[in-house]
Amino acid sequence: MIYMDSAATTPMSDAALSAMEPYWQREFGNSHAVYSAGQHAAAAIMDARKRVAKCLGCTPRQIIFTSGGTESDNQALASLALRRLGSGKSDGGSENSGLHVRNKIITFQFEHAAVLRSVERLSQFGFDVEVLPVFSDGVVQVNELLPYLTDDVLCVSMMMVNNEVGTIQPVQEVARLCKERGILFHCDAVQAAGHIPIHINDWEIGTLAISAHKFHGPKGVGVLVHQPNDYVEPLIVGGGQERGFRSGTSNTPGAVGCAAALEEACAHMEENSQSLWEINDVLRAGILRIPDSRLTGTADHSKRVPGILHFCFKDIDAQTLLIYLDAHGICASAGSACMAGAVQKSNTLVAMGVPDVWARGALRLSFDASITLEEAHRVCDVVAQGVAAQRDRA
Amino acid sequence: MIYMDSAATTPMSDAALSAMEPYWQREFGNSHAVYSAGQHAAAAIMDARKRVAKCLGCTPRQIIFTSGGTESDNQALASLALRRLGSGKSDGGSENSGLHVRNKIITFQFEHAAVLRSVERLSQFGFDVEVLPVFSDGVVQVNELLPYLTDDVLCVSMMMVNNEVGTIQPVQEVARLCKERGILFHCDAVQAAGHIPIHINDWEIGTLAISAHKFHGPKGVGVLVHQPNDYVEPLIVGGGQERGFRSGTSNTPGAVGCAAALEEACAHMEENSQSLWEINDVLRAGILRIPDSRLTGTADHSKRVPGILHFCFKDIDAQTLLIYLDAHGICASAGSACMAGAVQKSNTLVAMGVPDVWARGALRLSFDASITLEEAHRVCDVVAQGVAAQRDRA
Repeated sequence: MIYMDSAATTPMSDAALSAMEPYWQREFGNSHAVYSAGQHAAAAIMDARKRVAKCLGCTPRQIIFTSGGTESDNQALASLALRRLGSGKSDGGSENSGLHVRNKIITFQFEHAAVLRSVERLSQFGFDVEVLPVFSDGVVQVNELLPYLTDDVLCVSMMMVNNEVGTIQPVQEVARLCKERGILFHCDAVQAAGHIPIHINDWEIGTLAISAHKFHGPKGVGVLVHQPNDYVEPLIVGGGQERGFRSGTSNTPGAVGCAAALEEACAHMEENSQSLWEINDVLRAGILRIPDSRLTGTADHSKRVPGILHFCFKDIDAQTLLIYLDAHGICASAGSACMAGAVQKSNTLVAMGVPDVWARGALRLSFDASITLEEAHRVCDVVAQGVAAQRDRA
Repeated sequence: MIYMDSAATTPMSDAALSAMEPYWQREFGNSHAVYSAGQHAAAAIMDARKRVAKCLGCTPRQIIFTSGGTESDNQALASLALRRLGSGKSDGGSENSGLHVRNKIITFQFEHAAVLRSVERLSQFGFDVEVLPVFSDGVVQVNELLPYLTDDVLCVSMMMVNNEVGTIQPVQEVARLCKERGILFHCDAVQAAGHIPIHINDWEIGTLAISAHKFHGPKGVGVLVHQPNDYVEPLIVGGGQERGFRSGTSNTPGAVGCAAALEEACAHMEENSQSLWEINDVLRAGILRIPDSRLTGTADHSKRVPGILHFCFKDIDAQTLLIYLDAHGICASAGSACMAGAVQKSNTLVAMGVPDVWARGALRLSFDASITLEEAHRVCDVVAQGVAAQRDRA
């Protein structure tokens, strides 16, 4: 099996798995208990918090452990509605807001469903939601965004790396522009963490979501990072764990596994990146040799992560191609695995204006550094055969 | 170490751990992917769903996997507010509702914080929330509840087993009364699942929350059961997993581990119960020999689970006693571990009208069938010594 779907999920690393092992049966205590067995669990979670914070360029107190990237995105955005409840707080806290009530949320058509569905819900709560299109290169243009950053904008939500095409967004710049204007900035960094450097506090990012299983950590674990001004509200209330920001018995093995995986991914980021680019180059050259094929999004290396490539083939049915690949031992997807099975078109490709005749033949190849160059060549061959087979039959 | 805090959390069973093992690194695929590796994960989750449903007396389609009992409680109750958003639905769907708008939520002072904080939030959303007191025996009296079940009541939330004192609530009766009156019924069954029989559909329970780590399953995994009329709304939105009821990449090992643990707990429920009652009897007799000690809640075996006992000692500081026990190798708690560290009094004891001078000296002993009679005797001795040592110093 050649696994080319690591943007969907990854196997656990040995480091993550062995870090979790003591907490299943031996150090299983409730981290909020008085006795020492509980304190061991609490210490393990605190250690995990420190290590995650270090990898992301923030302090341990900014880390909220959640059940995943989707929950983290939901909490960050739902907070905008929840903080209005009962608090009597106005959202126009910035000196730039003047008399305006900030009620607008800005995001982009190619965001992950966790963000898009969350802002839909915000519109039901009475927020003005503006979902902007994206250029055909899959990168948000700051000068295009600028006119939208008016003083009625409460929050901008922008992903760091697009999950379907792998393009990197100008997060640092947009975060700064938001900060200057008193606009809250949320970043879905689910495809970025462990893959490219993140410096939350240097970049003045307000809230940021990551998911452990995207970097060889456990499923069901994520992190929401927030700024100490505490604008985040709990989405899940109860016993008051995570300093009141996320209730529910702490998932000690989950937190520990997340930290171990992230630390390992960050430690090997540079060397991994190098070998990923080699694989990337082979795949890109090989696939683009197929007639009527296109790379989706910018070709500029500096605006892409090395481990995600996305192609479109004219007059090809993606689903049929994926089944062909599967039959030849290759796991891949057409785009976001989160939406697989759904008949609707990829919102990313729609946002980027990819014509239907191309968008129907979408293929995402995403991979980690365990893929060999031989495997990459084999993938090119099988994709070429699969495309040719379909076209022959047509 | 003698672990007497299994109502706080439990170690994973070997069955759960080995059931999860294949899904960490080998069958790690995203269950929503097209390729066969993803389909294996999807099949594992479907199998887990079936097994959990069978244990709880409902159908697989009624099972929503969540990140834990707290999330499940939150989702069930937040749904009451969310379904009003944008849906335009009226809540007075019952033939008994007449012209009344159902806007009242009824729950009890001794519910878990996940429920109490959720209904507080509902009151911020404009619901009328009534939190009823509980009799000193720790059991809801149906005839006392009856006058409150008026036709402006939208939902009653009642736990199945109280997490601090171990009393069983008349869920079957209250669920039926609610059903007859067109009132929604939510049940926090976190301390019940795997410990006493649950028949969701026979009992006509509307929504029910359980948590895997309370029955030797993994932390970070829970279930929300709901009725097919679909009154539940997603709390966490995004990719539309769990048939749209709970988004986020499915936690395959978590679901599988939850199912294995619940199945094992249910299969051994009767024999475990027998040995737990033996331990219970030893502890109860031994602890009540201590001067100025009281069992909290009813002494009626038929209204208690065997694995949770709660005592109060007059003029004793609970925290000091717990530290004494810990120093002698015994893990226990004063009440809900979820609230440990908090200075506030136990809401359960307040609800049951336990006087302060007793409530300050609270001790919960909760245990599974791995505890031996010798260990139970040792616990009695150490508690007696700890209480005596404190009183000697006073």
